[in-house]
Amino acid sequence: MKTETTIQGLSASLSSARQSRKTIGFVPTMGNLHQGHLNLVREARKICDVVVVSIFVNPIQFGPNEDFDSYPRTLEQDSNLLADVGCDIIFAPSVEQMYGKNKRLTTISVSEITNDLCGAQRPGHFDGVAVVVTKLFNIVQPNFAFFGQKDYQQLAVIKQMVQDLNMPIEVIGVPITRAEDGLALSSRNGYLSEEHRATAPAIYKALKAAETDLKNGQALTDVLAQIRADLTAQGFEVDYVEARSPMLQTVEQFDQDVVLFVAAKLGKTRLIDNLQVSHSA
Amino acid sequence: MKTETTIQGLSASLSSARQSRKTIGFVPTMGNLHQGHLNLVREARKICDVVVVSIFVNPIQFGPNEDFDSYPRTLEQDSNLLADVGCDIIFAPSVEQMYGKNKRLTTISVSEITNDLCGAQRPGHFDGVAVVVTKLFNIVQPNFAFFGQKDYQQLAVIKQMVQDLNMPIEVIGVPITRAEDGLALSSRNGYLSEEHRATAPAIYKALKAAETDLKNGQALTDVLAQIRADLTAQGFEVDYVEARSPMLQTVEQFDQDVVLFVAAKLGKTRLIDNLQVSHSA
Repeated sequence: MKTETTIQGLSASLSSARQSRKTIGFVPTMGNLHQGHLNLVREARKICDVVVVSIFVNPIQFGPNEDFDSYPRTLEQDSNLLADVGCDIIFAPSVEQMYGKNKRLTTISVSEITNDLCGAQRPGHFDGVAVVVTKLFNIVQPNFAFFGQKDYQQLAVIKQMVQDLNMPIEVIGVPITRAEDGLALSSRNGYLSEEHRATAPAIYKALKAAETDLKNGQALTDVLAQIRADLTAQGFEVDYVEARSPMLQTVEQFDQDVVLFVAAKLGKTRLIDNLQVSHSA
Repeated sequence: MKTETTIQGLSASLSSARQSRKTIGFVPTMGNLHQGHLNLVREARKICDVVVVSIFVNPIQFGPNEDFDSYPRTLEQDSNLLADVGCDIIFAPSVEQMYGKNKRLTTISVSEITNDLCGAQRPGHFDGVAVVVTKLFNIVQPNFAFFGQKDYQQLAVIKQMVQDLNMPIEVIGVPITRAEDGLALSSRNGYLSEEHRATAPAIYKALKAAETDLKNGQALTDVLAQIRADLTAQGFEVDYVEARSPMLQTVEQFDQDVVLFVAAKLGKTRLIDNLQVSHSA
């Protein structure tokens, strides 16, 4: 496994793979890796000849009051984990390597599906994601790119952008990896106190209960209200509880597949989770 | 020479070139080709193994009161011209092929350098250019892309976008092709009446006179005012006369290389031209 910190170095490392037309799989991350990330790499390993993982804490997707400075940087530990799951190349550029010294004038925005859910609380966040993902796609030029379904809205935004701009990349969404108690794995879980960590799995439990209730015929609005009440009662500060179609269109009732979305804070730590509920099954 | 009208057909036509690592040169056009376009193709022919020319009148770069519907579509004549200058593949997609049936949610904007010159009169124009050029770049995946310096601001916007987004493409600006009387070639010249066509070369004459005046030490603001006065006296309705650095930063005086920009109407036809004046020579 190689680690490259420059665009030029990465290009050199990938040139023989490109010349021999090997398939390149790409997993963009911000590091501080957990089993959720490693499962993305394992998926990439299954279907691609060469697997590239980027580790880059992208400043432009953080708001002014968010945790850019304190976001954990754990490159050595990440490298060891990645070596074990068959990553071929780590791309770990500096901010200057990615954004250069000249002012960036170009922005990319995906409208509508970024307006609510996490977009409402994080203005500009998905624009920052769109730019860095586009830059990384242009640098790595992968055939396949792997994103976790935990950041479901991000995955939908990237799929939309790839479709709208004809990017020659297949975007693959990988199911959420959960702890044994059901908590969706997230780098931010490390911020939780012991007590909050014990409370956190209530989100998934509420989503699973909602799934059962929906399948038993309860009304969608009632089910969403129940999730909110459950979590509030357990000490969460609920940001949103919403239902959308898989492509993030609004839905009024459970007459098609829906995805249930929760964002809620425990102390200062904001957790998100989602569950797709199939209508047919 | 092949003509492809679908993305899939183009990909199939280019696949053997890609597999054998041939260099692909790309010339995006809106058709109604003249010698200016053909010179872009000749430049591409010189340095690339495979030359692709797109012909696509892009609806999203036209304003509501602009000439999208009346823009000349002359594919058969264009094809004959392109065959003569060594084009390998024409890509002539429909609007539906390029934009699909689903609503596009993704926009690309380049700020600052799009605010004035042609950007001031054409809100959204350069956003439309940025999106279609990005789509075409992702479809064709060229090594080199060729744009005329006549649309100097467009060229600067594309260079900026390519740099900001790390697009793996070298953008080459090709000098303006002029008629014998100096008029910059443009598809829109065909809209001119005989009388206006006789007047039109005054733009280039005014730019050349300005170059001489600048080199003789006249102040930049006076020289710009003189161009405006000259053209107004000859019946032009002047939109702008401006000076910028080659990267489109504002300049106050002739203490570096400057580009002089003119946009002016004769009747309903809007003509643009520019001239780079070197400070050192």
